Amino acid sequence: MGVTLAELASRCQAEYRGDPHWVIERVATLEQAGPHDLGFVVGDKYRDLLDATAAGAVILHPRDAGRFRGNLLLSENPRLVFTRAASILHAAPPAVPGRHPTAVIDATADIAADAAIGPHAVIEAGARIGSGAVIGAGCVIGREASIGAGSRLHPHVTVTERCVIGARCILHPGAVIGSDGFGYAIDGARWEKTPQLGRVVIGDDVEIGANTTIDRGALGDTVIENGVKLDNLIQIAHNVVIGEDTAIAACVGIAGSTRIGKRCTIAGQAGVVGHIEIADDVHILGAAVVSHSIPQPGRYAGFPLEPYADWLRNAVRMRQLDEMAQRLRALEKKLKKLSEGGDYIE
Amino acid sequence: MGVTLAELASRCQAEYRGDPHWVIERVATLEQAGPHDLGFVVGDKYRDLLDATAAGAVILHPRDAGRFRGNLLLSENPRLVFTRAASILHAAPPAVPGRHPTAVIDATADIAADAAIGPHAVIEAGARIGSGAVIGAGCVIGREASIGAGSRLHPHVTVTERCVIGARCILHPGAVIGSDGFGYAIDGARWEKTPQLGRVVIGDDVEIGANTTIDRGALGDTVIENGVKLDNLIQIAHNVVIGEDTAIAACVGIAGSTRIGKRCTIAGQAGVVGHIEIADDVHILGAAVVSHSIPQPGRYAGFPLEPYADWLRNAVRMRQLDEMAQRLRALEKKLKKLSEGGDYIE
Amino acid sequence: MGVTLAELASRCQAEYRGDPHWVIERVATLEQAGPHDLGFVVGDKYRDLLDATAAGAVILHPRDAGRFRGNLLLSENPRLVFTRAASILHAAPPAVPGRHPTAVIDATADIAADAAIGPHAVIEAGARIGSGAVIGAGCVIGREASIGAGSRLHPHVTVTERCVIGARCILHPGAVIGSDGFGYAIDGARWEKTPQLGRVVIGDDVEIGANTTIDRGALGDTVIENGVKLDNLIQIAHNVVIGEDTAIAACVGIAGSTRIGKRCTIAGQAGVVGHIEIADDVHILGAAVVSHSIPQPGRYAGFPLEPYADWLRNAVRMRQLDEMAQRLRALEKKLKKLSEGGDYIE
Repeated sequence: MGVTLAELASRCQAEYRGDPHWVIERVATLEQAGPHDLGFVVGDKYRDLLDATAAGAVILHPRDAGRFRGNLLLSENPRLVFTRAASILHAAPPAVPGRHPTAVIDATADIAADAAIGPHAVIEAGARIGSGAVIGAGCVIGREASIGAGSRLHPHVTVTERCVIGARCILHPGAVIGSDGFGYAIDGARWEKTPQLGRVVIGDDVEIGANTTIDRGALGDTVIENGVKLDNLIQIAHNVVIGEDTAIAACVGIAGSTRIGKRCTIAGQAGVVGHIEIADDVHILGAAVVSHSIPQPGRYAGFPLEPYADWLRNAVRMRQLDEMAQRLRALEKKLKKLSEGGDYIE
Repeated sequence: MGVTLAELASRCQAEYRGDPHWVIERVATLEQAGPHDLGFVVGDKYRDLLDATAAGAVILHPRDAGRFRGNLLLSENPRLVFTRAASILHAAPPAVPGRHPTAVIDATADIAADAAIGPHAVIEAGARIGSGAVIGAGCVIGREASIGAGSRLHPHVTVTERCVIGARCILHPGAVIGSDGFGYAIDGARWEKTPQLGRVVIGDDVEIGANTTIDRGALGDTVIENGVKLDNLIQIAHNVVIGEDTAIAACVGIAGSTRIGKRCTIAGQAGVVGHIEIADDVHILGAAVVSHSIPQPGRYAGFPLEPYADWLRNAVRMRQLDEMAQRLRALEKKLKKLSEGGDYIE
Repeated sequence: MGVTLAELASRCQAEYRGDPHWVIERVATLEQAGPHDLGFVVGDKYRDLLDATAAGAVILHPRDAGRFRGNLLLSENPRLVFTRAASILHAAPPAVPGRHPTAVIDATADIAADAAIGPHAVIEAGARIGSGAVIGAGCVIGREASIGAGSRLHPHVTVTERCVIGARCILHPGAVIGSDGFGYAIDGARWEKTPQLGRVVIGDDVEIGANTTIDRGALGDTVIENGVKLDNLIQIAHNVVIGEDTAIAACVGIAGSTRIGKRCTIAGQAGVVGHIEIADDVHILGAAVVSHSIPQPGRYAGFPLEPYADWLRNAVRMRQLDEMAQRLRALEKKLKKLSEGGDYIE
């Protein structure tokens, strides 16, 4: 059940070179690829592998077309072609619609006939599960929560009451959507818990990583817009808004009420303080701490945060600090000698 | 089923101004509030909203009472009044006592008659569940563990054997209480696992965030005292002690055997090394690394850690490091010229 | 059912001094130890406790043997002896083999007769569970995944399809093995998900902490070699390789395709960027950011990363930055005066 080179090219919006009828069955690394495998090359260091590969076809940028004599898929964006080819050749088997007999489903839940509810899942009163949605083993969908059409929840996902997940979302194991925000009033030394009355509202085509947590809003909602991608072990606090197509890598924390723009990227372990605004098209380096609003697009790094180019220049000096301190001390001594009018001997 | 302004004031320990019989039904943002909603204002930027709001009543600090002509709840601590009003108006519906038929409950577990055990929960031998406690869907309560009266465990919480949770605690989805501490002896290059024989002992009125992990003690116990609030994705290692009413924000890690005092706050992504002591009333800035004991109360920041005021002064220089290095180099050149006795021309 | 001093010494590969027939029943802290308890001392600060302890025996380094008059276990590696003695005296009760009636086990799964499958566990088609393995309550073992002999999965662990866990591994609650890697191609502003086709392959004697996440490889596999120890809340991205006997503390993130050597240690909250190589026997300080390959063994710290000894010297200067900047400014003023030929008065 492979796909011919010509058809694959057409469906991936790539050009092809070679035998249009050659059948491709799967993707593989260049080292492991056989005659019906499609190999993928990225970066210079893999180019040497081209000579040795047994791959039935290879994806290349047109500028590299001369490097391989066999069948080719050619594209200005080889990674995109690889992604599409892999999606075609390795489509996940569709979930079998139905409700596992061990699932606990409230009679008032509204579940599409073609949805798949896994073993030990719990669907509470008034929840809605859209067409073709897959609710994995042990997931808990709270009261009046809503899961959009075609969304897939892997095992052990929790979606709490009234939260909304859009269409075609993917939630990985252990993700928690709608835990209470961390909000308290203080009465003397004691914290009094502020009820967290808002929701989490997630758009379409959002992916959320394993064990990532997104808190519900305090009064309004926490909002994750369409196309956002969140990696594993990320914390999104209450009332945060994340703009369309923003991607956030693992171990990032975003504090409460912060608004992040569209098409941003935030690299691993960065932190963003609360109550600030980040413009569209902002890119944050790993481990940076965003302590103030960022009104301008661009790349930023460090703590305190600064434009990336500045950070690069300053960061290299961190490793020279002790040397700088010693040179400063030496200068002070020399200058003291000079200013005392004494002879100065180096 | 609202509450009159006068009754709300009385129950929230606030003053009121306006119609004592006006019925308040819920809290809302000023923008969304209607005639039976209570609006809440914090900070200058929200004050403009007061003119436009349709809120039936508003909570204000007495100094701002002149800014709004309608019904008021007045308090020196508006946030506390909001918290209490929201708790009254939006009380969570009480869980229905009973044991879901899919729960797996050992015959030797001691479960209060009015506790609520959710679907697919597992209660092992000898565990105790107190009066009014709620054990969410899929929670696992280990052998001889104890959950205090009125505590609420959201779905997918794990409490391992012999751990103790006090009264009125709230544990959010995916929290893990009592995983093994990270303890090994080394035999050449190989790690040999040290049995983790202690417990986690959690006091009353503690809240623990989603996917937060607290390891059991190696020999003694890991202790979380009364009133502690822990946000999401926090790691508490074995034998840590956290003092009363301390609050810790998301993504913080506390290494083993460290003792943290009472009424401390630790902001997001901070780290605390093991085997140190932090005094009462210490406040740690986000992303700080606490590498030594802190015997004095106060605010601290940075890595290496320093008093907050010092950190502020030093941190601003981080963005000037390259400039400082260039100025240092220029000084060295100038001084060399001068000391060589040559004419110095700027 | 205790063990005599002589037998314990033999089984722990320690020397003993005192009554060979004295029965030891458990380990305890020196403060709490009674006449049949084995106490353990590490570090100077505990030595004072030796005079007061009622412990029936104590583990000491031979150099300290003179400090205690009672029964002794003596070893150059007291921690290893403690670990072994605790393992003998406090062996976890063996799980009772069998399948809990609420477990959902596919008919094609291959489960050893002496494995123990807990309540509400889910074992999918073609999965293999080895001899003596324990699958905790609510665990989900995906299609064709494999759990080696003697491995123990605590509650709520997810192992996704085709992933492999070796023998004698321990996985703590909420660990996720085999979530999708964070891989996308970009088409204009939109992210297109790259199928994650590889596996996670975990060796023997590996321990994985609570809520730690390990992503499956994109094409090849993510590999965790024998003897690796991972603490809680760690993120391991796709295609990472972690060498034998490496230990990683909590809250660390390792980005994609990075290779970490054997016998490394990485302390808490450190981050490692993607596509780099770290040599064997590298030790990374807490909160460090490894931004480049490390070809040489040794200790490293900071961000930017540097050898530990350099970092120590430089880090102390961080707290002097403002003072350095002021001294630099003062020097500039003095030198300007001097170079202008004017009188210089301090």
